[in-house]
Amino acid sequence: MKKIVTIGEVMLRLSPPGNQRFFQTHSFDVEFGGSEANVGAALAFWGLHVSHLTAFPDNEIGWAASGQLRKNGIDTRFIPYLPGRMGVYYLEQGAMQRSSQVIYDRINSAFSNFDGKAYNWDEIFHGVSWFHWSGITPALSAKCAELTLCSLQEARKRGITVSGDLNYRSNLWRFGKEPHEVMPELMALTNVMIAGSRDFKQCLNEEFKSFTEVRNMAFDRFPHLEYIVKTDRISHSSSNNTISAMLFAKKRIHSSKSYELTHIVDRVGTGDAFAGGLIYGLLHFKPKEAIEFAMAAGAIKHSVPGDVLLCSLQEIQELASGEAVGKIKR
Amino acid sequence: MKKIVTIGEVMLRLSPPGNQRFFQTHSFDVEFGGSEANVGAALAFWGLHVSHLTAFPDNEIGWAASGQLRKNGIDTRFIPYLPGRMGVYYLEQGAMQRSSQVIYDRINSAFSNFDGKAYNWDEIFHGVSWFHWSGITPALSAKCAELTLCSLQEARKRGITVSGDLNYRSNLWRFGKEPHEVMPELMALTNVMIAGSRDFKQCLNEEFKSFTEVRNMAFDRFPHLEYIVKTDRISHSSSNNTISAMLFAKKRIHSSKSYELTHIVDRVGTGDAFAGGLIYGLLHFKPKEAIEFAMAAGAIKHSVPGDVLLCSLQEIQELASGEAVGKIKR
Amino acid sequence: MKKIVTIGEVMLRLSPPGNQRFFQTHSFDVEFGGSEANVGAALAFWGLHVSHLTAFPDNEIGWAASGQLRKNGIDTRFIPYLPGRMGVYYLEQGAMQRSSQVIYDRINSAFSNFDGKAYNWDEIFHGVSWFHWSGITPALSAKCAELTLCSLQEARKRGITVSGDLNYRSNLWRFGKEPHEVMPELMALTNVMIAGSRDFKQCLNEEFKSFTEVRNMAFDRFPHLEYIVKTDRISHSSSNNTISAMLFAKKRIHSSKSYELTHIVDRVGTGDAFAGGLIYGLLHFKPKEAIEFAMAAGAIKHSVPGDVLLCSLQEIQELASGEAVGKIKR
Amino acid sequence: MKKIVTIGEVMLRLSPPGNQRFFQTHSFDVEFGGSEANVGAALAFWGLHVSHLTAFPDNEIGWAASGQLRKNGIDTRFIPYLPGRMGVYYLEQGAMQRSSQVIYDRINSAFSNFDGKAYNWDEIFHGVSWFHWSGITPALSAKCAELTLCSLQEARKRGITVSGDLNYRSNLWRFGKEPHEVMPELMALTNVMIAGSRDFKQCLNEEFKSFTEVRNMAFDRFPHLEYIVKTDRISHSSSNNTISAMLFAKKRIHSSKSYELTHIVDRVGTGDAFAGGLIYGLLHFKPKEAIEFAMAAGAIKHSVPGDVLLCSLQEIQELASGEAVGKIKR
Amino acid sequence: MKKIVTIGEVMLRLSPPGNQRFFQTHSFDVEFGGSEANVGAALAFWGLHVSHLTAFPDNEIGWAASGQLRKNGIDTRFIPYLPGRMGVYYLEQGAMQRSSQVIYDRINSAFSNFDGKAYNWDEIFHGVSWFHWSGITPALSAKCAELTLCSLQEARKRGITVSGDLNYRSNLWRFGKEPHEVMPELMALTNVMIAGSRDFKQCLNEEFKSFTEVRNMAFDRFPHLEYIVKTDRISHSSSNNTISAMLFAKKRIHSSKSYELTHIVDRVGTGDAFAGGLIYGLLHFKPKEAIEFAMAAGAIKHSVPGDVLLCSLQEIQELASGEAVGKIKR
Amino acid sequence: MKKIVTIGEVMLRLSPPGNQRFFQTHSFDVEFGGSEANVGAALAFWGLHVSHLTAFPDNEIGWAASGQLRKNGIDTRFIPYLPGRMGVYYLEQGAMQRSSQVIYDRINSAFSNFDGKAYNWDEIFHGVSWFHWSGITPALSAKCAELTLCSLQEARKRGITVSGDLNYRSNLWRFGKEPHEVMPELMALTNVMIAGSRDFKQCLNEEFKSFTEVRNMAFDRFPHLEYIVKTDRISHSSSNNTISAMLFAKKRIHSSKSYELTHIVDRVGTGDAFAGGLIYGLLHFKPKEAIEFAMAAGAIKHSVPGDVLLCSLQEIQELASGEAVGKIKR
Repeated sequence: MKKIVTIGEVMLRLSPPGNQRFFQTHSFDVEFGGSEANVGAALAFWGLHVSHLTAFPDNEIGWAASGQLRKNGIDTRFIPYLPGRMGVYYLEQGAMQRSSQVIYDRINSAFSNFDGKAYNWDEIFHGVSWFHWSGITPALSAKCAELTLCSLQEARKRGITVSGDLNYRSNLWRFGKEPHEVMPELMALTNVMIAGSRDFKQCLNEEFKSFTEVRNMAFDRFPHLEYIVKTDRISHSSSNNTISAMLFAKKRIHSSKSYELTHIVDRVGTGDAFAGGLIYGLLHFKPKEAIEFAMAAGAIKHSVPGDVLLCSLQEIQELASGEAVGKIKR
Repeated sequence: MKKIVTIGEVMLRLSPPGNQRFFQTHSFDVEFGGSEANVGAALAFWGLHVSHLTAFPDNEIGWAASGQLRKNGIDTRFIPYLPGRMGVYYLEQGAMQRSSQVIYDRINSAFSNFDGKAYNWDEIFHGVSWFHWSGITPALSAKCAELTLCSLQEARKRGITVSGDLNYRSNLWRFGKEPHEVMPELMALTNVMIAGSRDFKQCLNEEFKSFTEVRNMAFDRFPHLEYIVKTDRISHSSSNNTISAMLFAKKRIHSSKSYELTHIVDRVGTGDAFAGGLIYGLLHFKPKEAIEFAMAAGAIKHSVPGDVLLCSLQEIQELASGEAVGKIKR
Repeated sequence: MKKIVTIGEVMLRLSPPGNQRFFQTHSFDVEFGGSEANVGAALAFWGLHVSHLTAFPDNEIGWAASGQLRKNGIDTRFIPYLPGRMGVYYLEQGAMQRSSQVIYDRINSAFSNFDGKAYNWDEIFHGVSWFHWSGITPALSAKCAELTLCSLQEARKRGITVSGDLNYRSNLWRFGKEPHEVMPELMALTNVMIAGSRDFKQCLNEEFKSFTEVRNMAFDRFPHLEYIVKTDRISHSSSNNTISAMLFAKKRIHSSKSYELTHIVDRVGTGDAFAGGLIYGLLHFKPKEAIEFAMAAGAIKHSVPGDVLLCSLQEIQELASGEAVGKIKR
Repeated sequence: MKKIVTIGEVMLRLSPPGNQRFFQTHSFDVEFGGSEANVGAALAFWGLHVSHLTAFPDNEIGWAASGQLRKNGIDTRFIPYLPGRMGVYYLEQGAMQRSSQVIYDRINSAFSNFDGKAYNWDEIFHGVSWFHWSGITPALSAKCAELTLCSLQEARKRGITVSGDLNYRSNLWRFGKEPHEVMPELMALTNVMIAGSRDFKQCLNEEFKSFTEVRNMAFDRFPHLEYIVKTDRISHSSSNNTISAMLFAKKRIHSSKSYELTHIVDRVGTGDAFAGGLIYGLLHFKPKEAIEFAMAAGAIKHSVPGDVLLCSLQEIQELASGEAVGKIKR
Repeated sequence: MKKIVTIGEVMLRLSPPGNQRFFQTHSFDVEFGGSEANVGAALAFWGLHVSHLTAFPDNEIGWAASGQLRKNGIDTRFIPYLPGRMGVYYLEQGAMQRSSQVIYDRINSAFSNFDGKAYNWDEIFHGVSWFHWSGITPALSAKCAELTLCSLQEARKRGITVSGDLNYRSNLWRFGKEPHEVMPELMALTNVMIAGSRDFKQCLNEEFKSFTEVRNMAFDRFPHLEYIVKTDRISHSSSNNTISAMLFAKKRIHSSKSYELTHIVDRVGTGDAFAGGLIYGLLHFKPKEAIEFAMAAGAIKHSVPGDVLLCSLQEIQELASGEAVGKIKR
Repeated sequence: MKKIVTIGEVMLRLSPPGNQRFFQTHSFDVEFGGSEANVGAALAFWGLHVSHLTAFPDNEIGWAASGQLRKNGIDTRFIPYLPGRMGVYYLEQGAMQRSSQVIYDRINSAFSNFDGKAYNWDEIFHGVSWFHWSGITPALSAKCAELTLCSLQEARKRGITVSGDLNYRSNLWRFGKEPHEVMPELMALTNVMIAGSRDFKQCLNEEFKSFTEVRNMAFDRFPHLEYIVKTDRISHSSSNNTISAMLFAKKRIHSSKSYELTHIVDRVGTGDAFAGGLIYGLLHFKPKEAIEFAMAAGAIKHSVPGDVLLCSLQEIQELASGEAVGKIKR
C-alpha cells in the first residue's frame, strides 16, 4: 500500500442547509475540510495510507475534527492538540445565478500559530511515496510559510515526489510577505504543479502572454518539475459548469474529456478531488489515463455534499470510461 | 435615506420541506409573506426606510409575523394587533413538470376585517417618497377595497409617488364587487403600474387587441401614469423558466435582458422582488438601468427560498452587469 | 368503483436525506415501497378500490408498513402478520453523473417465506376487474414463485384481466431456478405485459433480433396477450433523462409523447407509476389515450419523493394534454 | 370484531418542534387530531373496527387528514369532502412551569358547516356496538349541535351503547346557544358519561355541592346512564402531573391506581386515550379492570408525541398490572 | 413607553441539537445572544423601547445578528458594522449529571476592537430611563473597558438609572488589567447591582466574611447604590436546579419564592431573564413584587430554548402569583 | 499507551428521533453499535490503543460502520469486508412508563457467518494488555461461538488479561446449543466477569440461592477468575433509574456510590460504558477507585445519545468525585 502525506489547515465548515442564505438560516450543517486534507481523504477512500499534518485546538471541536479525518480513513497520529482556536469558514451554497459565498474566520487558528518544531520528519516520512501541499498554507502566517518550506525540504531530502496546488487566493497573504517572496522557493521543490496562468502570475509576480510561455518558463526554471496540470472551468451559473483539464509534461500535452456539470450539488472541494485523482492517477496509470481519472474525480465531486469526494475507485473509473452514467445500480 | 410605505396582507406560509407533496409531509416550513411586504423587505434590505401597513391577530402567531417583518428591516410601528385569525397560505413547491400549488386560507383574517380607521396618515406618510400597493388588497374584502382607496388618496394628496402591482387573481374578489367596479379608481391614482394585458383586461373589464392598444389607452385614461411595466415569463417547467421585462414610458420602451432560470429554488415572491427592484431603480437610476436592476432582482429571487429576496444591492448589480455569475465569492 | 388486486413484497426503504452518500449520512428517510404496491397506490389515489396481497412481519415495523399502505388508500385486510423479518432496501439517490445505488437486504423476509396457503381467493377476487403482478415476486423464492403462479391461475379462472411487469433483475433469482423455468407459465396467463427486449430475452432465455421479432413471437406464443408495453429511457445523467413509451396491440402501435426529465427528484417507482397509469388508462380510455396517460404518470413521478406517485388524475391529465405545465396553481 | 363509530371534527395540528415557542419556530410538526377520532384511533390500534364520521375540505390538506386516519386504522369511507377550509389548531408544548398553549383557528371549517344530511345511518350503524361523541361537537355550530343530536337519536334507535365525553370548553359555544340549551338532551341519550363536576355544572347550568350530589342527580335524571367516569389530575408543572380515575356505577365506585407522570412528552390526547381505554375496557372487562385499563391507557399516552395513543393492548395491560415498567424490551 | 438602553457583545451561539455532544454533532442550532442584549430582549418583549449598543462585523453573519435583535423587538439603529469577525460561543447542553459546556471563541471580535468614539450619546440617551451593563464588557478588552466607563459616565450625567450585572468570569480579563483595577469605578456609577459574594470579592479583590459584610461595605462605599440583588442556585444536576433570589435595599430585604426547576430545557440566559425582570419590576412595581417578578422571569426562562426569555408579561405574572401552572391554555 | 483488543458484532442502529414510536416515524437516526465495540470506544476516547475484531459486509453500509469506529478512535485494520448483510437493530427509545423497545434483525449477518480463520493472532495480540468479549458473541452462531473460544485461547496463551460481560440474552442462542454447553469453557479463560445471578444461572444452567453462593462457586470453579462485577439497577420508569455496582474480589467487596438517574437520555450502551470504565479502572487504579470510576462512566452514559460513551476522563473523574455536577463549564 502506497503511503502519502499531506499538510495543511483543516477548518470547521458551517453551511446553511439547502439553498438558504446566511441571513435566514437557523442551523448550520457541520463539516470539517481543508484543501490538502480533502486530497488526502480522496486517496484514503481508495485504499492508500494517508497521514495528514495539521494542528488542532485542544478542545472538543478540535477532537471532533480529528475524528472526522479518521472516519475518512486518514491517519491522525501526527496531529498535535494545542491551545488556540479552530479556524472556521462559513459557506453559503449558491444556486442558479446567485454565487456561493465563503466568509473566512481563520486568523489566529491553532494551525496558523503552529511552528511544526515538534514534528519528527523521519517518522512522518518513513516509507512515504508522495507529499502534497498547497499554496494556501504558506499564505496563512509566517510560521506556516516556514513550516511549508521545511516540510518540502524534508520530503525532497528523502526523494519523495511532491505535488503542490498553487491555489493563489488574494484574500490570504496578510502576514507581511508577498507570494513572490515565498512561493518560488516552494515551487522549486515541487514535481507536480496544479496551477493556471493566474496562479503562476501571482506567485511569481510576473506577466505571461500565454500558457505556453508559462509552461516553457516553468520547465526551464524549476528543475524538479515533471508535470503542470490545469483545469478549465466555465461557470454558466452556480448550478451549471463545464469543466476539463490538461496535463503538460515537458514534451507532451494530455487533455481530459470535458464534463457538463448541470445540477451542481456542492462546488467546494472539487479541485481537491481532482488533485487526489491526479496523485492516484500518476501513481498507478499512464499520464493520459491519469488526467482522465483526475478529471472524472473532480467532476463527480460536484454531486457530493461536503468537502470530501467519498467516491469509490470503481465509480471514478466508470465515469472516466463513460459506463452506465446515471443508471440505478442495484 | 428614502422613506417608503407599503400596504397589504401578510400571511403565514406553510410549505412541505423540499419537494414533498402536501399528502406526504410531516412538517411545514414556516415563513411569513405577502406581496407588498415582500416588496418592502427587498427595499429595506437595500437600506431604505420601509414601513408596512397591515393588521395582525393579537396572538403569538401575529407577534411572530411582526417579528419576522422587523428582522427583514421593516418598521412595524403602525401595525395594529386585533382580534381575529392569521391568514394562511399552504404552498407546495413544484418541480419538473409538476406545478407548484397554493391553497389559500385567508378569509376572515384580521387584516381583511380591518377598516384602517385608526391609521394616522399624517404620521404614516411623514417624509415618505413612495407608496406601493397591489391588486390583491382591494380583492380581499369591501373594507380592504375601501382602505386601499383611502390610502391612495392620502398618498396622492401629499404628492407621494404611487406604484401598484395590478396582479389580478381570479380566486379572490369574492366579496361582492367585480374588479372593474373598484380598480379603475385606484389605477387613476397610480404613477407606476406593473401589469400585463390580462391584468388590464380584467381590471377594466375591456378587451384589447394588443399591448400597444393597452398602453395607449392607459396613458390616455390615467393622467398620473408615468410607467407601465410588464414581465414576460415562459414556464418550460416548474424548474425552468425564461423571463424578461419591459418598461413603457409614454414615449419610450426599455427592455431588460432575458434570463434563463434553470434549477429554480422558489418561484414565489419573484414578482415582488422585481417590483422592489423597480421602485429602487426608479428612485436611483435612469429607466433603462431601472428595468435591468428590477429584472436582475426578480431573476435572482428564484434562487432564494421563502417569500423575500434577501439579496444585497451588490449582488443585484453584479447580476445586472453580468459579472462573476456563479463563481464562489471568498 | 373498479376493484383491483396487486401482489408483491413491500420493503422498508431507507435513504440518506438529500444528496448524501451512505458513507456520510446520520439519518435515513423512511418509506415503504414495492413495485406492485406502488402500482396499487397510484390506482387507489385515483379512487379505485385496491387490495394488496403481501405478508408482513408481526412487529412494529410490519404494522407501520401496513399503516402506510392504508394511508395511500390500499385495502390491507388480506395481509397476514407472520414471524420473520422486514425486507429492507437501502437507496442512495444519485445526482448528476453519480448513479443512484440500491443495496437490497430482503433475503428471508416474511413475504419471501410465505406460501399464501391462507389466502381465500374467492374473497380476495370477489368483484375484481384487474390483477397485477411483476417479475420480481417469482424471483424471490420458490414459495413466491409458486404463490405467483397460483394467484395467476386463480385470477384467470375468474376471467380477471391480468397485467404483469416482467421487470427482470439479475441480482434476484437466487433460489435455484432460472427465469425461463418459471416465467413462461406466468406470461401465458397474462393479458398485458410491460416488458422490453431484454426482459423477454431473459425470461424466455432466447435471443431476438428486434423488438418486432419479440412482438410477433409473443402474440403467437401467448394466446391471452392483448398488449405489450415498453418504455424507452435515455439516462443523460442521474438528474436528466428522456423517456417515452409504446403500446403494441396485435395490429397497432401507439406511441406516447417524449418527456425531457431534467431536475429529477426521485427516479424510483417511476415504472410503477407508469404501470398504474397504464392500468387506469386501459380501464377507462382508448389505447392511444391510455399510453399517453401512463407515460404522463410515469414522467411526473420523477418529481415526487418516495416510491409512490401521489398525483391526482387531474394533474396527470393536464400533463398528458400539455396544459399549464410548471405554473403556480392557486 | 366489535364495530365502533365515533363522530367529531379532525383538525390540522401545527406544533413548533421540541420545546420551541411560537415566536421562535421556523417549522411546524404536522399532525391531525380531534378528540373523538383520537378515541377511535386508540380502539382501531387494538384491532376493533372503527368508522369515524366527520367532513374534510376537498383539497390536499383534507385528503392528507383522511390518509392519516386510515393509517391509524380508521375506516374513512363515510367522510365527505366538501368546499371549505380545514380547522387548524396551533399547539405550543409547555415545559416545566411554562404552560402548553393552544390557538384554535377552526371557525368555518368544512365540518362545522356540515349538516350531515348525506349520512346514511343504516349503513353507518350496521352491526355497530358502540357510538362515541364529545361535548366539543355540539359547541362548534348550530349545524354541529343538530348533527350530534341526530346521530345520538339514530344510535339510540338501534340500541347502540353511547359514550360521551362532556368536555366543556368555555372558548367554544359561540354560535348563539348556551350549553344547557343543548347538552341535556344529548346527555339523556348517553350511557357512559366522562365528566367531572365542572362539566356537569356547565352543561346543566346548575350548582352542585359535591360530586356525590352530581352523581345522584345524574342517575336520577338520565335513565340510560350506566356509568359516570371522571379523572383527577394534579398539574405540578407541564412536565409533571399526577393522575387517577374513578368509575361510578349506580351502586358502586371503582378507583384506578394513581400514576406519577414525570417527564411528560405530550399532554394532548391523554383524555382521549383514556376514553378509548374505557370503551375497550367496558366492552371486554369488568368495571374495575376497565377503569384500570382506561387509566393505564391515559397515563402512557403522556409519553407518545402527537394526538394519538399508538400503544398496543399488551403495553397497556403490562402497565395496568405493573409489569416491567421502564425496562428495555428486546 | 419607557426607554431603555443596554450595551454589550452579541455572539453567534452554536449548539448541537438536543442532547448531542460536540464530538457527535452534524449540525449546530444557530442563535445570537449576549447577556445584556438578552436583558434588552426580555424588556422589549414586554413592550418597552429598548436600544442595544454593540458592534457587528460588516458581513452576512453580522447582518443576521442584527436582524435577530430586531425580530426580538430591539432597536438596532445605533449599531455600527465594522471590519472584523463575529464572536462565537459553542454551547453543548448538559443533561442529568453531565454539565453544559461552553467554548468561547470571541477574541478579536468586531465589538472587542470597537472604541465607541462614533456614538452620539445625546441621541442614544434621549428620553432614556434606564441603562444596563454587565461585568462581561469591561473584561473583554481595554477598549471595551473604556467604552463601558464612558457609557456609564454619560448615563450618570443625564440622571439615568443604571443597573449592572457584575457577572465575574475568570476566563475573561485577558487584556492586561485585573477586575479590581476597572470595576470599582464602574460600580460607583451604578444604582442596582446584581451580584453575589464571589462577584464582589473578585471585582474588589477583597475578602468578606458574609454577605451582610458585603452589603454594608457596598452601601457605604457606593453612594449611588440603591439595591443589591442576588440569586441562589442549587444545581442538583444539569436537568434539575433549585433557585431563589433576594433584593437588598439599604434597610430592607425582600426574598422571592423558591422554584424547583426540574426538566430544565436551556439554562443559558436565565440570569439575563432575571435581570430583565428586575428592571421591569423596579420600573413598575414595589420592591417585593419586583423581586418576585424577576425570579419568575428567571425561572420560566429555563423552559425556553435559546438565549432569550420570549415570555409575555402575563405568563410571568401568572407564574409569580402561582396561577394555572402547567395547565394547557386554550 | 496500553493496548486493548475487543471482539464482537457491530450493528446498524436505527432509531426514530426523539420520543417517536416506530409506527409514526418518518426517519431513523443512524448509529453503529455493539456491546464490545462500545467498550472499546470508551477506552479509545480515553487515549488507549484499541483494536476491534469484527467483520462487515463489503458494501457502503459496512464501510460506513468501519468509518464510525475509526472516528471513535478504534483501530479497524483487522476487520475483513465480506459478502453478506449488516446486522440491524431497531431501537425505540422509551419514555416515562413506556419501555424502550429493540427489534433485532441480525440473523445471517456478515459477522455471524464469519469463522475468523483469516485472523493472524500474533499480529492482533502483539503488545496487547487486555482482551474483552461478551456473552452475546457465542450466542450468535456456531461459528461465532467457536471464534470466541479461539480468541480466548489465543489471549490466554499470551498471558493477556481477559474480561467478559456474560450478558445473557434469551432471544439469542438460536443456533442449536444451550449457553451451558458453551459458556463454561469461555468463563474458565476469563479473569474479570461482569455478571449478575441470572447470568450465572443461565450460563451454567444451575440454581443458586444467593449471590454469595454464586461468588463462592465461581472463584472455586474458575481458577483464572480475579473479579466478579455486578451492577444493580432499579427502573422506576424509562426516564428514571437508580444504579450502583459492586466489585467482588476473592476476599473483598467494593461498592460504588449509587446514582439517581432522572431525565434519562439514552439507556443503551450504559453497561458497555461501565465495562469500559471497569477495564480502565483496573488498569490504572485500585479496585475501590476502579468500581467508582466504572459506575460514574456507566451513570453519565445515560445522558449521551447513541451507543457510545463519548465522555472524557476528566468528566468521569469529576462525577466520581462529585465535583461541579450540573454547572455550566465555560
